[in-house]
Amino acid sequence: MIDFIFQNPAKIIFGKSALSHLQTEAARFGKRVLLVTGGQSARRIGLYDEVMRILSDGGFTVFELSGIVPNPVLSRVYEGIALCRREKIDLVLALGGGSVIDTGKGIANGVPYDGDVWDFYAGIQVPKAAMPLGVLLTHAAAGSEMSYSSVITNENGRIKRGFNSITNVPTFSILNPEWTYTLPPYQTSCGGVDIMAHMMERYFTDVEHVELTDRMITAGIQTVMHNLPIALQSPDNYDARAEIMWAGALAHNTLLQTGRIGDWCSHKLSHELSAAYNLTHGAALAVLFPAWMKHVLKQNPKKIAQFATDVLAVDPALGTDTQIALEGIKRLEAAYRSYGMPTTLRDAGIVDPDIQALAQKALPEPDSAIGGYVKISRQDAIEIYRLAL
Amino acid sequence: MIDFIFQNPAKIIFGKSALSHLQTEAARFGKRVLLVTGGQSARRIGLYDEVMRILSDGGFTVFELSGIVPNPVLSRVYEGIALCRREKIDLVLALGGGSVIDTGKGIANGVPYDGDVWDFYAGIQVPKAAMPLGVLLTHAAAGSEMSYSSVITNENGRIKRGFNSITNVPTFSILNPEWTYTLPPYQTSCGGVDIMAHMMERYFTDVEHVELTDRMITAGIQTVMHNLPIALQSPDNYDARAEIMWAGALAHNTLLQTGRIGDWCSHKLSHELSAAYNLTHGAALAVLFPAWMKHVLKQNPKKIAQFATDVLAVDPALGTDTQIALEGIKRLEAAYRSYGMPTTLRDAGIVDPDIQALAQKALPEPDSAIGGYVKISRQDAIEIYRLAL
Repeated sequence: MIDFIFQNPAKIIFGKSALSHLQTEAARFGKRVLLVTGGQSARRIGLYDEVMRILSDGGFTVFELSGIVPNPVLSRVYEGIALCRREKIDLVLALGGGSVIDTGKGIANGVPYDGDVWDFYAGIQVPKAAMPLGVLLTHAAAGSEMSYSSVITNENGRIKRGFNSITNVPTFSILNPEWTYTLPPYQTSCGGVDIMAHMMERYFTDVEHVELTDRMITAGIQTVMHNLPIALQSPDNYDARAEIMWAGALAHNTLLQTGRIGDWCSHKLSHELSAAYNLTHGAALAVLFPAWMKHVLKQNPKKIAQFATDVLAVDPALGTDTQIALEGIKRLEAAYRSYGMPTTLRDAGIVDPDIQALAQKALPEPDSAIGGYVKISRQDAIEIYRLAL
Repeated sequence: MIDFIFQNPAKIIFGKSALSHLQTEAARFGKRVLLVTGGQSARRIGLYDEVMRILSDGGFTVFELSGIVPNPVLSRVYEGIALCRREKIDLVLALGGGSVIDTGKGIANGVPYDGDVWDFYAGIQVPKAAMPLGVLLTHAAAGSEMSYSSVITNENGRIKRGFNSITNVPTFSILNPEWTYTLPPYQTSCGGVDIMAHMMERYFTDVEHVELTDRMITAGIQTVMHNLPIALQSPDNYDARAEIMWAGALAHNTLLQTGRIGDWCSHKLSHELSAAYNLTHGAALAVLFPAWMKHVLKQNPKKIAQFATDVLAVDPALGTDTQIALEGIKRLEAAYRSYGMPTTLRDAGIVDPDIQALAQKALPEPDSAIGGYVKISRQDAIEIYRLAL
């Protein structure tokens, strides 16, 4: 176990009655709210109207920044910052999934900062403070409701960048599993795969003696794998939705990375795939994570084999670490497919992709490397993309 | 899963280098520190001198409240509050285990409060704010380094009371597993049993569909059960000490009770045993938890059987829930004995205890009941103490 610092002050309000806390939580900061929203889904389920009614009943003045899209963009963050400053907003309230929350985080960090908020994403400045941010979560996937992270795309050059900071941790997050009942199955599955990936990126480490976190990650992934098929079969099964939603927050709140170094290569390679071919993040992960596993096990099968036995119940007596690992990958792919996810680029409708270009975007410097478990060069990335064909 | 609110803002600084953060963390609050300490152990390992040197080098003025004993008492809390007020202390710094930390919590809550701090313990007032509290943890057991709880004994009537509040969560806690190397084996074992009990009290619930937390608790208990024998065999095994120490903090930080209701009957009955016969908390739990399990399984074997199969690997095909549960209890008792813990009152040197008196103290009202999993009456308590003979 390596030395670590862990702190996550987010207040999580979870369950069917969670929304009843909104007025009290919001009122702690003042009466002027910027509500950040996405497309139509929160309106369709009546949640938008309910939130507006609660805020109006509470005497709040609500300003809106709506229509935030997946892969949220910097110009909307700027717009929100200007609105907050002009209208002397007390609380940013993000109603939606990861894109809406990440936009809210950009705004909350940007308002008290004198310079350009992109400085944080570009890594040339570190935020010292942020405005209070509340979250109403409608999708179990990105984990932004409890995470240190915000990812924004700068339209100027289409650069997608993220930064990690405690100022990105929401002040409070309200999670009601019922709000995920009407998600299309494809989105439910993409969310589940994303949650699993957040845990797997942390599982695959070469740090030794990380037993507690190994076991807790196993607990988390097995919970998602047990409940995702139930949620797909019965979209309004509260218990399954609740397990997935809570797992989604815990997957990315940094608890599961305490004492260890994660990998994150699959995420990096997936981001390039999503950017180039407009493939949903979860689907891109379902395609690339098994390919990454197949590639790295040639160098270091140990933790892939442990994953196979611990998480996927492969018999440890099956054979060598490599044989056990391969059987594990087969089971993982079968699980992904059972969720309706692609596990190859072809499945995802991507035929003859420009692999050289993808690898070059992921590793712009010819001698650079990514990944904490096994160092991946540009040539390795090419082979991983090939394994995903 | 039931609705819940979860928040734990404690900053955990963990590892061999953790103490190097003390100056920076302490300096955030000012330069006047009240150092609360226990007996000689922190002095024996040189930690006390090291902390004093760090604080002195950092230009801090240090006041001391030393000699805090197990089952810490209210008069020392009063003393600390008076010291803080008189000397305009900026930070309470607790160096020790649960007793020292709980005393620090009492002081930190009492200073900004106009009334008697005992009001919080007596449950007639709720604290609104507390002074900053830092922790340097020397024993993995009570979980006070990250918990909502403080337990203090009022010498006036020997009343031991606790209260739960977010104001009890330490501002920062510095955990170095090396500081537990020199604990006597008996204390190491008592700590391990206490940590397991904090997780078991939460595991035993009749709330359905709590899969993620069930699995995470299983992860935690199995980690302690795997590493405790290693730490007993090799007291300076860093990895084993680190697993136990981090498990100890997570066992009691309220994460594992999200969405569920715990039991806590074994804790209650153990406290009376400790109070009457001066038996260490962990040892009292090792005696009483199996007895409690044997008693409640007559009414509700389900979760005891699940504990047996999930945590202790009892074959689910062994028989009925009751048979599986009994085999699980047998294995738990065997594990406790292998740690050198008593599993009967006789083992603990308590012959012919006054069971009626113990039960009456645990349940002063004849018609009252305790426990979340199975309601325990005074008569039940008598039977549990009998089962522990």
